[in-house]
Amino acid sequence: MNTKAFFKLSYGVYIVSANYENKDGGCVINTLAQVTSSPARLSIALNKNNETLRLIEGAGSFSAVVLSEDVDMELIKTFGFQSGRDAEKFEQASYERDLNGNPYPTEGIAARFSCKVTDRLDVDTHVILIGEVTEADIPSDSQVLTYADYHSKKKGTTPKNAPSYQESQTKGFRCSVCGYILEADELPEDFICPVCGKDASYFEKID
Amino acid sequence: MNTKAFFKLSYGVYIVSANYENKDGGCVINTLAQVTSSPARLSIALNKNNETLRLIEGAGSFSAVVLSEDVDMELIKTFGFQSGRDAEKFEQASYERDLNGNPYPTEGIAARFSCKVTDRLDVDTHVILIGEVTEADIPSDSQVLTYADYHSKKKGTTPKNAPSYQESQTKGFRCSVCGYILEADELPEDFICPVCGKDASYFEKID
Repeated sequence: MNTKAFFKLSYGVYIVSANYENKDGGCVINTLAQVTSSPARLSIALNKNNETLRLIEGAGSFSAVVLSEDVDMELIKTFGFQSGRDAEKFEQASYERDLNGNPYPTEGIAARFSCKVTDRLDVDTHVILIGEVTEADIPSDSQVLTYADYHSKKKGTTPKNAPSYQESQTKGFRCSVCGYILEADELPEDFICPVCGKDASYFEKID
Repeated sequence: MNTKAFFKLSYGVYIVSANYENKDGGCVINTLAQVTSSPARLSIALNKNNETLRLIEGAGSFSAVVLSEDVDMELIKTFGFQSGRDAEKFEQASYERDLNGNPYPTEGIAARFSCKVTDRLDVDTHVILIGEVTEADIPSDSQVLTYADYHSKKKGTTPKNAPSYQESQTKGFRCSVCGYILEADELPEDFICPVCGKDASYFEKID
């Protein structure tokens, strides 16, 4: 099996978010799609380790934004490379709330949706949620960021919890938080990850 | 609700196919995503009207190919704008069979997968199927066709059964087979659809 075939799948880059029991949270995903048109429903896939999944299932609703080409990488780092268990992500971003009370980032986005969760499918390590769309808006005329451009232009990485995560065939050291790989024989003790800013203790050797 | 927000979602273009009870069939979809990485699983969404859904559910497995930028529009017309109830699509294309006996197109593709169906979620007009990947290959180094490029470069259209189908806000006549819109006050009696080749009797007036 040539696992590089998975890199041929096209995605956008999205942040899904919710508020549950007075806690705001959200995370970056690439697996969002429209599954029905009348009524309009979106599907999203989230890793069971994601704090955001707990918040969305608790709230029974979620916001989803489509990131734009001009998005600041800091927003992706904030929502993609930290756990909501450790960080108050929305305190680090401009945001508003939708009619369900769920927060969503307002900068670096090309479109936004609000959804009520209607269905759930357990797929082992991940959960697919279906949401009926209750709000949809295009707050700017920015171009959307594709997942391919995220990798090629933004030099983005794929963390371990992502559905599209691939074991690397490169030797070196991998950041366990954001997936950044340092190709080197030795990891300097004072090394700081250039993508997510974690120190050397977060790196794992890969052979 | 601004339904144009749905046009901001990024997809690739795929053909999924199967063989059931000695019948080959397949159709074009844009909703294919990886949902887990270990083991690797793909999700696909199909309209319940699609003959291909019946074949895949009967077979319990499917092939999926990623279409490439250099794909011939004839292949998309063959698999996207005809029903498998009326046409033997694979008789009109070059194809091979995977280890499950399912056929897949061999030209105009950037990657291919074979999957065994493991889960199913009924979403009203559509069904989401989850497939565990048993084969994955990159038969050429062609660039993948994105759904955005399909619309902008290939002048592709979206038929009514697609999850991303949108009612048009344009006045004129719409081809009920492929979704092509002629912006005009009158539909000439001898009009032939420039996308799928159907005659004027297949066109519906839109206001």
